[in-house]
Amino acid sequence: MREEIVEAAMAEFRAHGFNAAGVKDITDAAGAPKGSFYNHFESKEALAVVALERYGATRRLQDLADQRIEPLKRLRRHFEFLRDEIVGYGYTQGCLIGNFGNEIVDHSVAIRAGAQQGVDAWRAALAGALADAVQAGAVDPGLEPQTTALFILSAWQGAIIAARTERSSAPFDAFFTMIFGKLLAASQNDRSS
Amino acid sequence: MREEIVEAAMAEFRAHGFNAAGVKDITDAAGAPKGSFYNHFESKEALAVVALERYGATRRLQDLADQRIEPLKRLRRHFEFLRDEIVGYGYTQGCLIGNFGNEIVDHSVAIRAGAQQGVDAWRAALAGALADAVQAGAVDPGLEPQTTALFILSAWQGAIIAARTERSSAPFDAFFTMIFGKLLAASQNDRSS
Repeated sequence: MREEIVEAAMAEFRAHGFNAAGVKDITDAAGAPKGSFYNHFESKEALAVVALERYGATRRLQDLADQRIEPLKRLRRHFEFLRDEIVGYGYTQGCLIGNFGNEIVDHSVAIRAGAQQGVDAWRAALAGALADAVQAGAVDPGLEPQTTALFILSAWQGAIIAARTERSSAPFDAFFTMIFGKLLAASQNDRSS
Repeated sequence: MREEIVEAAMAEFRAHGFNAAGVKDITDAAGAPKGSFYNHFESKEALAVVALERYGATRRLQDLADQRIEPLKRLRRHFEFLRDEIVGYGYTQGCLIGNFGNEIVDHSVAIRAGAQQGVDAWRAALAGALADAVQAGAVDPGLEPQTTALFILSAWQGAIIAARTERSSAPFDAFFTMIFGKLLAASQNDRSS
């Protein structure tokens, strides 16, 4: 039953954020009696920290380090996976890390730490693939991997917000055009000139 | 008193989001008795729509069309203004449009429409400055102004989330490096080659 609660919490938090997703919403979605919640979790906050860890583990970060695949292809596939997931949910689900970062950054130390940990792991995986791309000569060598990863991840979080606001993939399309067609395509421009 | 309530609501919504900012928090911050709220507004939602309009009017969008200033300088100053405001508040305040877009996109038609209207006006102002930059030959002529504006605004919203999560200007620094140092600097690379 703990497992069902974590899964339901992930979906509720992704759809509605921390504040709007109530314990009863979560236990209802999990098919659990509300009273059973506190047998498994001390608080909604404690559950949120577990949900954040679980969510991070589903982001396929390990694929970003797969040396059998070209680094730019790894990066593109990563964001295609994330995009397809959100489009598949009809824009009803956002990114748990982004939601929590945006919503409750001022409220809970534990969740802020969890969100930061999620961002750090994600950013490191992106920076690794970007460093591989620089080393392979596939992108502008002036792109510093850490800064670029930080920027790309921020831009992605923003694209999710925009896509959900307008329930359209246009912000995702703009992300792919600008990141893969422009920012990470610089060395191709250099080569052709 | 209505005026004080709108101003207080803007700050509370920017700091805590729609769900977490209660009517009592807002009237307390405004120095108004809670009971007076409904003399001025039908609901917290109605107040949110007014706050969104007011917030949009404070974004200095008109400066993005100031033909006396180089288009790239206009764009840079715009985001410097927005950054300095958030840093000045110690990362306690986010962007009202971004907060609402992220948090309550699934909940309220009126607020969703208000957030969308805010985004549309902002995006159009950015696209106008970008079109000026293309025309002036200051940027890669392959940058389509609408798509680029959509991307830059999303990237900015994401940078705010990241900056607030880690209470650091590093995500803003990455935004300026990547947008003004790379994406909007492409034609300079072309010229030098």
